[in-house]
Amino acid sequence: MKTVAPYMAASDIATRNAALKKIKESLISNSEAIFKANAVDMENAEKSGVAPAVIKRLKFDEHKLNDVSAGLDMLVSLDDPVGKVSLNRELDEGLTLKRVSVPIGVIGVIFEARPDALVQISSLCIKSGNCAVLKGGKETANTNSVLFDLIYKAAVSAGLPEGCLCKAETHSEIDELLKCDKDVDLLIPRGSNAFVSYIMNNTRIPVMGHSDGICHIYVDRAADLDKALGIIEDAKLQYTAACNSVETLLVNREIAGKFLPMLKAMFDEKEIVLHGTKEVTDLVGGDTIAEDDFKEYLKPEVSVKLVDDVREAAEFINSHGSHHTDAILTEDDAAAAIFMQLVDSAGVYRNCSTRFADGFRYGFGAEVGISTSKLHARGPVGLEGLVTYKYLLTGDGHIVGDYAAGTKSFHFRDI
Amino acid sequence: MKTVAPYMAASDIATRNAALKKIKESLISNSEAIFKANAVDMENAEKSGVAPAVIKRLKFDEHKLNDVSAGLDMLVSLDDPVGKVSLNRELDEGLTLKRVSVPIGVIGVIFEARPDALVQISSLCIKSGNCAVLKGGKETANTNSVLFDLIYKAAVSAGLPEGCLCKAETHSEIDELLKCDKDVDLLIPRGSNAFVSYIMNNTRIPVMGHSDGICHIYVDRAADLDKALGIIEDAKLQYTAACNSVETLLVNREIAGKFLPMLKAMFDEKEIVLHGTKEVTDLVGGDTIAEDDFKEYLKPEVSVKLVDDVREAAEFINSHGSHHTDAILTEDDAAAAIFMQLVDSAGVYRNCSTRFADGFRYGFGAEVGISTSKLHARGPVGLEGLVTYKYLLTGDGHIVGDYAAGTKSFHFRDI
Repeated sequence: MKTVAPYMAASDIATRNAALKKIKESLISNSEAIFKANAVDMENAEKSGVAPAVIKRLKFDEHKLNDVSAGLDMLVSLDDPVGKVSLNRELDEGLTLKRVSVPIGVIGVIFEARPDALVQISSLCIKSGNCAVLKGGKETANTNSVLFDLIYKAAVSAGLPEGCLCKAETHSEIDELLKCDKDVDLLIPRGSNAFVSYIMNNTRIPVMGHSDGICHIYVDRAADLDKALGIIEDAKLQYTAACNSVETLLVNREIAGKFLPMLKAMFDEKEIVLHGTKEVTDLVGGDTIAEDDFKEYLKPEVSVKLVDDVREAAEFINSHGSHHTDAILTEDDAAAAIFMQLVDSAGVYRNCSTRFADGFRYGFGAEVGISTSKLHARGPVGLEGLVTYKYLLTGDGHIVGDYAAGTKSFHFRDI
Repeated sequence: MKTVAPYMAASDIATRNAALKKIKESLISNSEAIFKANAVDMENAEKSGVAPAVIKRLKFDEHKLNDVSAGLDMLVSLDDPVGKVSLNRELDEGLTLKRVSVPIGVIGVIFEARPDALVQISSLCIKSGNCAVLKGGKETANTNSVLFDLIYKAAVSAGLPEGCLCKAETHSEIDELLKCDKDVDLLIPRGSNAFVSYIMNNTRIPVMGHSDGICHIYVDRAADLDKALGIIEDAKLQYTAACNSVETLLVNREIAGKFLPMLKAMFDEKEIVLHGTKEVTDLVGGDTIAEDDFKEYLKPEVSVKLVDDVREAAEFINSHGSHHTDAILTEDDAAAAIFMQLVDSAGVYRNCSTRFADGFRYGFGAEVGISTSKLHARGPVGLEGLVTYKYLLTGDGHIVGDYAAGTKSFHFRDI
């Protein structure tokens, strides 16, 4: 596959877009075969006692097909991320340096459960000129197999090189894939936190994504308390299982007496469980937790703790959070500036919900994932997360000796 | 140190530049102490039988001091890499997204031998607002200790936070440092290939750099053969120990009969050893090597092999090279285009020496290193390799629920 990657990278955008269109057509015209394979998977899953919440995620029906079709249309409409010139500089007469975006190469995609992820990520790889090795969950092996065959055939029939996509099927192949650091340039895992953590801890290949999403909201002494309730409700309840939903609230001690009862009333009304440190539950009740017991609930439960000021809030977030997305609620510009400077997270927000951390809501068109790594891509990642660059230098017999000897010198003129 | 990093990141450019100036002054006014410590290191190294070539690299004299002073001056003159806004977008009325460059955080710097590397890399970290953990080679423990103390005191006296730099001294601390993936965001190793490989293979922290530099030059059938000789001589001899010097020549079979004798004559005159595949040595003599015996010589020796065309050359380079810098010599635009498209290296060159792969020659002002990784930074890396970004989102009570319900919608207007 490593040998196919340079030819995949050389494919033009017209071919890549044609492939995406053919994939959409093929999925639609073969929908019955997909649904049939999925029905077998669903039946097997039920028989083997897979939890209903997981089974729901295995489903690939008309609704999912519409979603992936819409995703393919949108992807076709996006600009080519490949071939963008980010530097064009004449180093000296006749010696020109260009930095041009190129596909990363071979992307390993490993996902649990949701078969629509296979379509989504393989199409992102195609749009960006990358080869992909796809490994889906065993629960949807039949669905994945049908989807892969349709996608691969459509891609090759549109003119993309043979071998541009391949699938790994047995579970042992995951561990093989994790060892392929010579052949795979980047891994994108999709699944539970435990699954993503396992991938991150067991490979030397760079991984794009995040395992935990322990997002915080700090309610400052100068917060507008009504706005705060609305934001906290949205950040917790709009989609509790999301990585960008809030898990820990930090409340300024000065306003605790006023704000905590308001918060508790809203929690009671909305059926949100409050886990507070002793100081908090002494005031408003709820489940008392230790000072170091903060976690990712992914359900309608929140930890609450008091802090003295914005600095303590920022330091707590940096040491207890997952560097994903954290917000301050305040009408005080100075406090907001300190928070946004000190918090070391991919997203640092003021007076809005942490749930905005999402590639589509940032206007990226497509989302590859959300990265909590600080290198390469951080936060919600669009297609540009699937490209790197190379430097192209063109001369006419230019040698370094002339510059070392001083007979020639660089003039560095950006073109 | 992780707790100091956000305060270091918050330091302003005036303070960081003042620190660089103070460091320069301090090094100059304490030069005698530095030279004295270095003399002890040199004497110890000689006594313990360190190879003369290595001893040369341990030296820190007036000449080296001038070099690092000039480097500090230059660094002061460069733009602040922190705080650059690369995206400024109104998502909706009153909801504004900014992407701003920020320091990476804590950089682990591990270097063998050369004590000037300590000055150079710590000053790059300071300029970019990063904290640094510095670990130097034991051969220059005395020099490093004096240099570190001067640099750290100057930095703190200029107003940078205490703890912004720290040093690790014993060898076992390298292995400790390699395990600090929760506290160290990036490692920059400086030293031999074996040393860098060791670092890369023994840590989960991202490493910026490269171990091997097996650079190729492909002499196409349409090459200007006289230019080719000049470029090859420069790429091999201008500095044989450099990572960007050429190690393998691929020659188009069609011109081998004419070009190889010219090449061999130049090699004989310049005392370059030719290691060729049988086909090559049958024509012009030299040491015969097997078809898979290509290596990084780092001395005046070159491997030579024949290929049929530009595609074979590109495929050979992709499978045998180190993705560092590779060049084609040709007057044929079509062949050049194929080569520059297919070769998957950080630098792909036409008609010039591979020795141009260098941050200073690219006009970056400062060089952090040369990366053969495809993620984050690739090729010669300037100061921008030491920053990442974060997304700052400012609203006024904005919640995702409104957009999900369709009562509000994004308008994505770049400002």
